[in-house]
Amino acid sequence: MTSYTSATIITLLNIILLLWVGAMAGQARGKYHIEAPATTGHPMFERAFRIQMNTIENTVLFLPTVWIAALYGATTIVGIAGAVWIAGRILYALGYRKDPAKRGLGYGISLLAFAVLLLDAMAGLVRALFIG
Amino acid sequence: MTSYTSATIITLLNIILLLWVGAMAGQARGKYHIEAPATTGHPMFERAFRIQMNTIENTVLFLPTVWIAALYGATTIVGIAGAVWIAGRILYALGYRKDPAKRGLGYGISLLAFAVLLLDAMAGLVRALFIG
Amino acid sequence: MTSYTSATIITLLNIILLLWVGAMAGQARGKYHIEAPATTGHPMFERAFRIQMNTIENTVLFLPTVWIAALYGATTIVGIAGAVWIAGRILYALGYRKDPAKRGLGYGISLLAFAVLLLDAMAGLVRALFIG
Repeated sequence: MTSYTSATIITLLNIILLLWVGAMAGQARGKYHIEAPATTGHPMFERAFRIQMNTIENTVLFLPTVWIAALYGATTIVGIAGAVWIAGRILYALGYRKDPAKRGLGYGISLLAFAVLLLDAMAGLVRALFIG
Repeated sequence: MTSYTSATIITLLNIILLLWVGAMAGQARGKYHIEAPATTGHPMFERAFRIQMNTIENTVLFLPTVWIAALYGATTIVGIAGAVWIAGRILYALGYRKDPAKRGLGYGISLLAFAVLLLDAMAGLVRALFIG
Repeated sequence: MTSYTSATIITLLNIILLLWVGAMAGQARGKYHIEAPATTGHPMFERAFRIQMNTIENTVLFLPTVWIAALYGATTIVGIAGAVWIAGRILYALGYRKDPAKRGLGYGISLLAFAVLLLDAMAGLVRALFIG
């Protein structure tokens, strides 16, 4: 498997993750009768909405990093760190839904995986520019 | 036309769509005197703001899927489903602006187009991995 | 340096920018005791949160444009307009943090750089499609 197929699989898993957190926010909007365009009004909806938004925010950082790591970095890191990031984001969503104070563990895991990917991408770029 | 030029055209149309919904939110901020950093205060501004945010949220799912479909999927699907998605998002914005309850049709059309693209991307990846 | 390495460097700088504005929002959440999932409650937190959100929103428009410009446009424009965009976004964040009314200059600079990139990307695509 090349680093591109790894990056593609991670990207598709990320998109399924976004569909899942989006569906949870949509369901909570219906269940707690939060009429659009409101984004507040019930703590359980607000949790689901923030889980969705935070997952989107982090995806905007994650996906470009995954693909730069796939272009310049080590192939195995893309797959492993990418999968750990996805797992961390699932833990984050499940923890946050139970109790906002429990969002830390999953967030920390995904942040660590992101840091590994970013360092891999940067190291790969430096290698490509200065060693060739 | 290759699937890359289709994906490029769809991406540029998506960016123009984002500029349009962003301009509507900016105009509503001025018109209804919503001082930054507030994002609430007048129903018409809140509609325009949610239209913009929802379009951005969906773009984060859409663009990676378009490009994976362009890499692995069927060329014609990228162009057609991509164009239908853009049309659905325009309908969504125009409907929502009139009445939040009228955002469903455009949203549904774009979600259907997105589902087609995602299935195309996934099927293409499976073909590439297991058939080669 | 090719247009891909320029686009890669700009993308990594954009990700570092997002980490910075994200860290400022996270710090403000702690400092002003805004418990998740709330996104309002103190003007200084609301500024930091909107700086982060607006930077993410604009990244969603910026990065695809950078890469299409790298694929089809003029190489030097990607690096220069990309760097100006990053500088404008830093100015925007620093200005907004002092006073929301001071967010205009940085925003204007980044919008101008974005317009140059978008025109470069579009012109490059038209050239590729009709001149070949």
